[in-house]
Amino acid sequence: MSNAVLEIGKKAAAAKSSIANAGSAEKDRALRLIAEALIRDTDKILAANEKDVNAAKENGMSSALIDRLSLTKDRIKAIADAVLEIISLPDPVGRVVSGSTRPNGIRITKVSVPLGVIAVIYEARPNVTADAAALCLKSGNAVILRGGKEAFNSNMEIVNSMRSALSQTSISPDCIQFIEDTSRESATALMRLNGYVDVLIPRGGSGLIKSVIENSTVPVIETGTGNCHVYVDKSADIDMATEIVFNAKTSRPSVCNAAEKLLIHKDIAQTALPKICEKLKEKNVEIRADESALKLIPDAKPATDEDWDTEYLDYIIAVKAVNDIDEAIKHINTHGTKHSEAIVTESFAAAEKFCAEVDAAAVYVNASTRFTDGGEFGFGAEIGISTQKLHARGPVGLPELTSYKYVVRGEGQIR
Amino acid sequence: MSNAVLEIGKKAAAAKSSIANAGSAEKDRALRLIAEALIRDTDKILAANEKDVNAAKENGMSSALIDRLSLTKDRIKAIADAVLEIISLPDPVGRVVSGSTRPNGIRITKVSVPLGVIAVIYEARPNVTADAAALCLKSGNAVILRGGKEAFNSNMEIVNSMRSALSQTSISPDCIQFIEDTSRESATALMRLNGYVDVLIPRGGSGLIKSVIENSTVPVIETGTGNCHVYVDKSADIDMATEIVFNAKTSRPSVCNAAEKLLIHKDIAQTALPKICEKLKEKNVEIRADESALKLIPDAKPATDEDWDTEYLDYIIAVKAVNDIDEAIKHINTHGTKHSEAIVTESFAAAEKFCAEVDAAAVYVNASTRFTDGGEFGFGAEIGISTQKLHARGPVGLPELTSYKYVVRGEGQIR
Repeated sequence: MSNAVLEIGKKAAAAKSSIANAGSAEKDRALRLIAEALIRDTDKILAANEKDVNAAKENGMSSALIDRLSLTKDRIKAIADAVLEIISLPDPVGRVVSGSTRPNGIRITKVSVPLGVIAVIYEARPNVTADAAALCLKSGNAVILRGGKEAFNSNMEIVNSMRSALSQTSISPDCIQFIEDTSRESATALMRLNGYVDVLIPRGGSGLIKSVIENSTVPVIETGTGNCHVYVDKSADIDMATEIVFNAKTSRPSVCNAAEKLLIHKDIAQTALPKICEKLKEKNVEIRADESALKLIPDAKPATDEDWDTEYLDYIIAVKAVNDIDEAIKHINTHGTKHSEAIVTESFAAAEKFCAEVDAAAVYVNASTRFTDGGEFGFGAEIGISTQKLHARGPVGLPELTSYKYVVRGEGQIR
Repeated sequence: MSNAVLEIGKKAAAAKSSIANAGSAEKDRALRLIAEALIRDTDKILAANEKDVNAAKENGMSSALIDRLSLTKDRIKAIADAVLEIISLPDPVGRVVSGSTRPNGIRITKVSVPLGVIAVIYEARPNVTADAAALCLKSGNAVILRGGKEAFNSNMEIVNSMRSALSQTSISPDCIQFIEDTSRESATALMRLNGYVDVLIPRGGSGLIKSVIENSTVPVIETGTGNCHVYVDKSADIDMATEIVFNAKTSRPSVCNAAEKLLIHKDIAQTALPKICEKLKEKNVEIRADESALKLIPDAKPATDEDWDTEYLDYIIAVKAVNDIDEAIKHINTHGTKHSEAIVTESFAAAEKFCAEVDAAAVYVNASTRFTDGGEFGFGAEIGISTQKLHARGPVGLPELTSYKYVVRGEGQIR
């Protein structure tokens, strides 16, 4: 175990009560000071970011990734604005979830409380540094940030800025911890900080998620891999199906709620597939088709077995013709990542069956998978989309960053 | 990975939809048939149990453990009755937890759904076999049971009985899986059945819990270790404090919600400690005291550092005098296992401070820690007491054995 990481865990655990017991007003004041500090420190952050970007260019990083890494004055303003937006969300701590008076007179109240210390392991985007910290603080948690090495200087400067803001409040700056060591070892050490870290949230590609699941002894909220399907039922409105597939695939292919697969009922394939594929060509989407669909899309490539389990995050879609809704549901439950799955249908029975039997965080009838998002669901900001079933499923917003405790009041009751 | 365990995981995963999609009526019918089968098969179960008990005696098992292992006709009746009681609890599946219509017209409904496949690793008590299976079935989950080798024959026979009952329903008997291999390897294989097992619940001693946390890549609900404290504040009613400490320590010392430690404010120690200790002597409780408390309890043993972290599960209590409530809270948050913690006080401020700052599943004012129990909380049966913060905290009843999904209905909305 890396001693530096252990020390960071201890510092966060020692500081957590200062944020857990801070009231909403003080937490919101801290968030406002953080937003102001980020704006005040824009030049420092940009200078640090320039170092990161230059290093990335020297190391031959792709232009898409460099774009995700790069900060501008406007982007820092947007990061600060995102922090300010969190102020307006309801405080998730201290909600009375339920309660009762028992026959013996004890009063039981179930109250939401912070999780304690949340660790976030993430990759190249420096905006995650401020986003994650702000969400954790608002929900009363201390946070340990472990970003990727590509954004090291940017992250460091953003953290300095945020910690300087906290030093003007009653909340300890130690509630925001930053792991400077970007080695694999530091990540592994963080995954094993039981007793100091209450939950670990990985934000990144499937390699990171897999490593966390494999190695973490700390409880994990698994996020973000989305091999999402749109199933076009035989009774579908073809125009609606075309728009939904096009939107789900192309509106932002790099995100986890984008569609990666099209399943189409064989009875409608002949009429619907040419229309859908023509629309997808507007964005030059590469189509990979199974044997049966291939006959209807002459310029598609043949799909391989591997395609059905691949999250492309790109302008690629694989198409499979199915015999019926049961085959579609079975395919989704076998190959999906339990993220977001959609049916397009005019049949009530098919819609209800799909919703009941598809095992995913979000199931859609006649709407795009792209709506799986804290903002679109009306929850405000989110720290990720959970694809596990324990604790949180779907968008992980502020309430999902809390636990609860039972408070029991009596007059000397014994059992 | 043990192939046998993998096959069992596959069978449970393949069968889970038959229980997930079964209605309440069918699940309740299955539970009734299970209770009837257990009564019908009483002789077979007793014969199997006799083998286990004889083997345990040959292996020199303690009489207390043999008592926990032993079944009688009455005990089997009690096990069947516990299954019947679960019928009367509300079905936790299909509850609409919340929902909204968004500005674009999509209707979002958050609905409770089964977790899927729940694995339970437990030790010598054969009643857990039926309890755990019944709770999992009622909550729409398939279950994989991995009991201890001491109860192997009893467990096997109970499982046979339950599976025979399921074969008379639309629910697949494969929804109850039993791992016959009681080796450490089979437990470890079960902990790594990602993709087949949705959650793993260990029920047993701290060694088992520790091994599961260390080795499981499947999400875990940590249960059952309770190093619980009673803090007697300076303003406490001494008679009430005496009754609460006595009850919390001695009403059932072998369970996780029993008190293991007494913290006492130094200003009240001189008057309160002799009374409390005299009462504890009625049950021959061994008292281990810190230096300061030792002066007031001449016949106590000195406590060692190790005592503060030990869950005795026996007629032993360690006593520490503290300077103030802050020292008490700090001691609890350092040495407690986040299970159940009590304050005895007449001070409103002290009560509120204790409830806010003590980090535990259940915090008590003027009541015994022994109330942390699904039945006492009015939840009905429970599968254990969670001491973690993710997903479930405190008594894990039927609602905590579910997850949720978002069902989104629209008319072609795209983003």
